[in-house]
Amino acid sequence: MESRTEISKIGEFGLIDRVTKDIATYNASSIKGIGDDAAVVNSAQHQVLTTDLLIEGIHFDLVYTPLKHLGYKAIMVNLSDVYAMNAFPKQVLVSFGISNRFSVEAIDEIYAGMKLACQRYQVDIVGGDTTSSPQGLVISVTAIGEQSFEKIAYRNGAKEGDLLCVSGDLGAAYMGLKILQREKQVFLNAPEASIELDKFTYIVERQLKPEARKDIIQFFDTEQLVPTSMIDISDGLSSEILHICQQSNVGCTLEEEHVPIANETYDTALSLNIDPITCALNGGEDYELLFTINPKDKAIVDKNHDIAIIGEITDALLGIKLHTKGGNYHDIIAMGWDGMKKNV
Amino acid sequence: MESRTEISKIGEFGLIDRVTKDIATYNASSIKGIGDDAAVVNSAQHQVLTTDLLIEGIHFDLVYTPLKHLGYKAIMVNLSDVYAMNAFPKQVLVSFGISNRFSVEAIDEIYAGMKLACQRYQVDIVGGDTTSSPQGLVISVTAIGEQSFEKIAYRNGAKEGDLLCVSGDLGAAYMGLKILQREKQVFLNAPEASIELDKFTYIVERQLKPEARKDIIQFFDTEQLVPTSMIDISDGLSSEILHICQQSNVGCTLEEEHVPIANETYDTALSLNIDPITCALNGGEDYELLFTINPKDKAIVDKNHDIAIIGEITDALLGIKLHTKGGNYHDIIAMGWDGMKKNV
Repeated sequence: MESRTEISKIGEFGLIDRVTKDIATYNASSIKGIGDDAAVVNSAQHQVLTTDLLIEGIHFDLVYTPLKHLGYKAIMVNLSDVYAMNAFPKQVLVSFGISNRFSVEAIDEIYAGMKLACQRYQVDIVGGDTTSSPQGLVISVTAIGEQSFEKIAYRNGAKEGDLLCVSGDLGAAYMGLKILQREKQVFLNAPEASIELDKFTYIVERQLKPEARKDIIQFFDTEQLVPTSMIDISDGLSSEILHICQQSNVGCTLEEEHVPIANETYDTALSLNIDPITCALNGGEDYELLFTINPKDKAIVDKNHDIAIIGEITDALLGIKLHTKGGNYHDIIAMGWDGMKKNV
Repeated sequence: MESRTEISKIGEFGLIDRVTKDIATYNASSIKGIGDDAAVVNSAQHQVLTTDLLIEGIHFDLVYTPLKHLGYKAIMVNLSDVYAMNAFPKQVLVSFGISNRFSVEAIDEIYAGMKLACQRYQVDIVGGDTTSSPQGLVISVTAIGEQSFEKIAYRNGAKEGDLLCVSGDLGAAYMGLKILQREKQVFLNAPEASIELDKFTYIVERQLKPEARKDIIQFFDTEQLVPTSMIDISDGLSSEILHICQQSNVGCTLEEEHVPIANETYDTALSLNIDPITCALNGGEDYELLFTINPKDKAIVDKNHDIAIIGEITDALLGIKLHTKGGNYHDIIAMGWDGMKKNV
């Protein structure tokens, strides 16, 4: 049986000492890490700053989320926002609100996932806050990245004639979530039943352990390509397209046939009686990059087989349209996940 | 009767639009604020970064905490950490986890307090995250400040012979909390009873609406004084002295008779049968600055009547001591507030 140490036994300072004692530093710009009133960093470039709050029961369900994966994902969702600015993350601050349901060993596991993510992406944990919570687990991560001013990509730079591109494939994380929720119900109804996740390796991993697209930003860097606009896909393709078009004051035609969907996502969607394109449009948490490029850069993008050109930016008057495989045009509307709105 | 709008009616994006539409920007270093994947800032100096997580039921009690004050204080506790590095805060990111108990108007109030704090301290709200919470309210604030490398003050720079100094007075916020908790009990036991807070204006304000000591950092800047070490007093004087001494590898003698305690704090402590020095040593949330200076700078500090010299740094072998008014020496031990440890 695994040992369980109550956090109250070692206190806040004891817990911080324990989880931070072997923290590595990868960046010379991290001047002072954990252990003072604030961290100190130094960058000759512009800094980008982003923060995300993850709350148990809203953003994650510990019935099917391993703690180490949760830590990994908490870092990843923030790095993804930094990459979406065409910047490179360098530091994170990580805060925890922890109820007495959680042992020291549980926090060790979450931290292990965070450290693994930081090691793989060469990011430094330089600070944070640790406190109690009356109920459940709260994780807040802030990420700091850097990039030279002229290379930062905003949501508002798309121009008529630009090509709309996306990395990877879409809808998988949402299908992974649906399968995990289904298996949770099976388990709750009959704890002795066997859980079958073997057929869903890819989509479940996309839900539980997403990867931010550092490789795409490195590709841009190597190729000296600066997207005219960019956003990461956290709420669903539809929602993100609307953000880019509205902030850039342009329209768009999205080609259904070019939207990348993995075979496993496609098959799972059909088996659950969901239209695969709906998963791609409205399923959240893909953490892929949606961006626009000047058409002169098409040859560069064509070299990267993990980038698909999925549409074209148009005049705002033409609206924001999905061109279906059947040849019809529909308005794109945001059906993605809005944590505060009661979605149907 | 006041109107109540459910947050679910306007959704996350609607709420963000509402609370951020009139946000002012005070600093040229804030290049891009709310509305993209990340904020963009630029500084020629070093940056300091700090974050705090505030959770309902742990850090605040809404029975006696006005929402506007809560917003103000959430900003203040973070700015205090930036000032404690001898740096000037420039930007904040603010995140909310909100249960359906809270209306749009309630969030307006919290935001009003945050905006007021930011206006007074000339700090820009450049980003954040807003989401639901299954229970209660969660607030996470990250602050970014700047200072030139050679002026940043750490906890570990105190030297033997340095003078130990503190701004303002101590123990007031803790006495304010005790009074608020007592009046809450009176109210719960007899809702028709009148609440008497008139005699406690100062200590209640110190608890509900603390001010970070920007003025002290500006004084240092004007006088070209760099403290050899510094920390802000959030957990209590004892705890902070231990941090400085342990990280600087020095000892200290604290003179009880020089510890500044306001009359209202002193009288309230006696009326509650608490030794006033205990409030000053172990009461938290003063948000005053504790720092050490080279003795050559004593004449500068003497000019500022809101700074008290309360002791001297000694060799580590002499220990960390309180010299009482009665002439005795006691070891200083941390009895301050540790949110995760079961204190007696």
